[in-house]
Amino acid sequence: MSFTPVASLKGKSVCAASQFDRTDIDALIELARAMKAHIESGQTIHALDGRVMTPLFYEDSSRTLSSFCAAMLRLGGQVVNFKVEGSSVNKGETLEDTVRTLDSYSDVLVLRHPKVEALAQATSVAQHPVMNAGNGSGEHPTQALLDTLTISAELGRVDGITIALIGDLKMGRTVHSLLKLLTHNFSLAKVYLVAPAGLEMPQEVLDAVAADLTQKHIALEQVHALSPAIVADCDVLYATRLQKERFPAAAAGADPVAAFQKAKEDILINKARLESAKEKMIVMHPLPRVDELSTDIDSDPRAAYFRQMKYGLFMRMAILYSVLA
Amino acid sequence: MSFTPVASLKGKSVCAASQFDRTDIDALIELARAMKAHIESGQTIHALDGRVMTPLFYEDSSRTLSSFCAAMLRLGGQVVNFKVEGSSVNKGETLEDTVRTLDSYSDVLVLRHPKVEALAQATSVAQHPVMNAGNGSGEHPTQALLDTLTISAELGRVDGITIALIGDLKMGRTVHSLLKLLTHNFSLAKVYLVAPAGLEMPQEVLDAVAADLTQKHIALEQVHALSPAIVADCDVLYATRLQKERFPAAAAGADPVAAFQKAKEDILINKARLESAKEKMIVMHPLPRVDELSTDIDSDPRAAYFRQMKYGLFMRMAILYSVLA
Amino acid sequence: MSFTPVASLKGKSVCAASQFDRTDIDALIELARAMKAHIESGQTIHALDGRVMTPLFYEDSSRTLSSFCAAMLRLGGQVVNFKVEGSSVNKGETLEDTVRTLDSYSDVLVLRHPKVEALAQATSVAQHPVMNAGNGSGEHPTQALLDTLTISAELGRVDGITIALIGDLKMGRTVHSLLKLLTHNFSLAKVYLVAPAGLEMPQEVLDAVAADLTQKHIALEQVHALSPAIVADCDVLYATRLQKERFPAAAAGADPVAAFQKAKEDILINKARLESAKEKMIVMHPLPRVDELSTDIDSDPRAAYFRQMKYGLFMRMAILYSVLA
Repeated sequence: MSFTPVASLKGKSVCAASQFDRTDIDALIELARAMKAHIESGQTIHALDGRVMTPLFYEDSSRTLSSFCAAMLRLGGQVVNFKVEGSSVNKGETLEDTVRTLDSYSDVLVLRHPKVEALAQATSVAQHPVMNAGNGSGEHPTQALLDTLTISAELGRVDGITIALIGDLKMGRTVHSLLKLLTHNFSLAKVYLVAPAGLEMPQEVLDAVAADLTQKHIALEQVHALSPAIVADCDVLYATRLQKERFPAAAAGADPVAAFQKAKEDILINKARLESAKEKMIVMHPLPRVDELSTDIDSDPRAAYFRQMKYGLFMRMAILYSVLA
Repeated sequence: MSFTPVASLKGKSVCAASQFDRTDIDALIELARAMKAHIESGQTIHALDGRVMTPLFYEDSSRTLSSFCAAMLRLGGQVVNFKVEGSSVNKGETLEDTVRTLDSYSDVLVLRHPKVEALAQATSVAQHPVMNAGNGSGEHPTQALLDTLTISAELGRVDGITIALIGDLKMGRTVHSLLKLLTHNFSLAKVYLVAPAGLEMPQEVLDAVAADLTQKHIALEQVHALSPAIVADCDVLYATRLQKERFPAAAAGADPVAAFQKAKEDILINKARLESAKEKMIVMHPLPRVDELSTDIDSDPRAAYFRQMKYGLFMRMAILYSVLA
Repeated sequence: MSFTPVASLKGKSVCAASQFDRTDIDALIELARAMKAHIESGQTIHALDGRVMTPLFYEDSSRTLSSFCAAMLRLGGQVVNFKVEGSSVNKGETLEDTVRTLDSYSDVLVLRHPKVEALAQATSVAQHPVMNAGNGSGEHPTQALLDTLTISAELGRVDGITIALIGDLKMGRTVHSLLKLLTHNFSLAKVYLVAPAGLEMPQEVLDAVAADLTQKHIALEQVHALSPAIVADCDVLYATRLQKERFPAAAAGADPVAAFQKAKEDILINKARLESAKEKMIVMHPLPRVDELSTDIDSDPRAAYFRQMKYGLFMRMAILYSVLA
């Protein structure tokens, strides 16, 4: 079987969600779903036979790393397991030289780095495409794309939906990219931003989506707690991890432990809270979860977060295939 | 060339030695030997082309890990190199969620974990088969199967043999599994249990095999030292690692250093001790060895412990092939 | 497409540069260049399909490791990712036993070890070929071969060239191997050895090449600084890493910081220094670089050090192919 790559990605680096227009996104979703059907029917793909991917992860992200690796291997490609610790990085080598080294052996690199500027440094010297797997507080475009695929595949549409982004919206790179991608490319009905005090969506992200919200008449509401009314209104509840260690700074003056406890109760998604939800809606989470998403809904058919990981595999296959095929 | 998978394993997790009956074991041995002959003649296998295995090792076991990886690769499959350290495990993720993540990318998982209960937690959420590569003081079924293959291939039979299990029989998961598998499925002549005082085979293992010993008239003798008479009587001397750090607890009141030294002398297998052995017998060891197995017999044809590792590769190939093909 | 392996390497370990004669080297260069042309035209190679390589790295060398891995994968082979840390090495296992283990699963091993004698220990027990990827202060033969390939491919010849080896020539295993290989197999015009005081080429290396220098009338000049006249005379400037931490010992009595600063200025290769260089010459460096090679010449066409890494991939492909095909 042959698949249709998304032509505009051929040989390109994947840096930011904003580089994809609606046509690209629709084509990637279609391609990812075709690959999903193919693989789940027990067939295999050899399209990237003989091609080599090297991941370059300067911070731990086993989920993203293993997802990219599995995607490459399931396309018939190969992976060089480069380990940053113990590499020439420790001998004072610059990021640019390390990238040049791996680029000289590889057909594609996957970069994860705690600094925003690392991505541009890498793409400036690499002769092969670089996949951004998270650059500090910057972007994580493949996550935004797999989230969009999940919504589309689970609900049958993205246009017209109401979505709540819930949790630490301040530091969450994932929800920044997703909000921009969704509002720019789809006609959403409404967006709820549900964040504890001090962890709200940054103003620069709100500024970035303001024009799209106005032009497409997308309603936006910012609150501190997930009320039954909001739950009832939403097609997607998108939760993100709430980290205890971010509370002392976030709630100066207040008791951080109490503040964390209160925030958790205000946004926790569990069986009780889902009682007011529609029958056809989904709960998403990029995982890992800690305290903000209860295991008591794991077997609820609306819990889409485990299926979301699987969509991630197929979206990354669609991207790598389009870039390399 | 096509191989005959062991049908009862298809799509199944491999949890414990007790799930294999004599028919399964004989079929696995035959399959492993066919694969050995095939690979050693320079041919290759592509049966698991396009399939992905992810090892999930919560404790170090480079030997078991690399053996499983080589087995998957030699079947034409692929391996995702997941690293537990630095993974979401450090972000407080439960074993179940980590398993769900990797399971969503993979066709088969291989789990090594210091806790017995981890295996059941993993199989309860995984949608694909899980291979138990050691769960705490629980089981290590592929080791017991490869040991059985080694005996069968080296001696031409398992029924009727006399075997001595030697060393730390208290903590040695390997010898627990092996004793159960052998006594339950084969008509052994006699079993010697040779362990230092305080490190004897646990009563629960003895209880578990009691019925089989009686029913099959298998003699059992427990001693503290490897005498010339025992060596002369055995078809298999199966040594396990003696760890100095287990002696203080084991021999309370006594001088642990002296106790360890004495124990080592009492069970050490070396050239001098092999003088009373039969011409056709084998010495086995799961390796790594430290002080209980001398290098002075490495070139003796009866030293089967290096060949045993190779049988391990082919037994794991037979298992993975039967589970996935 | 089929390639012609270098017949004398078939099934052989690659231990030292001295095991290759001129015929071997020419054939390896030809094979590596054919593979480079093939891969760079977008084609793939499946020659080592089904074969397994296991790297065994007792010290970090991410560049050499990833280069060997990419080479094996681009030949269609597979790699078992063995990790020394956390392996049975920590349980007191000898190198010989670890090698026997991995050898029993693999078709070829790649060994990197801080001790010279480790290589001989490994080859004495391995039944499959061992590739020496650096044994302490001993040899690094694939580096010397890829350096020779780089000179040959970039300049069109190796005979007749003038080369300067620059930097820490005392500890630099790379330059020891390269000097021996070049002087023994090629009719060089002249060799400059440019090293800071205390870090000169060891007498035993000079003794080893003395006969070849005399017989082939190769001029040799040892200096402490890279003068414009030397730069102008050279076809190859081969720089190696200058390590601050080696200076206190090297320049006892003197101020180590000042000595390092002075040495760096005396040998630094930068844009200003290249002004006296020929138009057709190359700058090489095994990388990583720190202070001895300026980034201000990175875009100069004579800067061959990034291309040198790529030649490394193809030379290692040529070697693995010849050993295993």
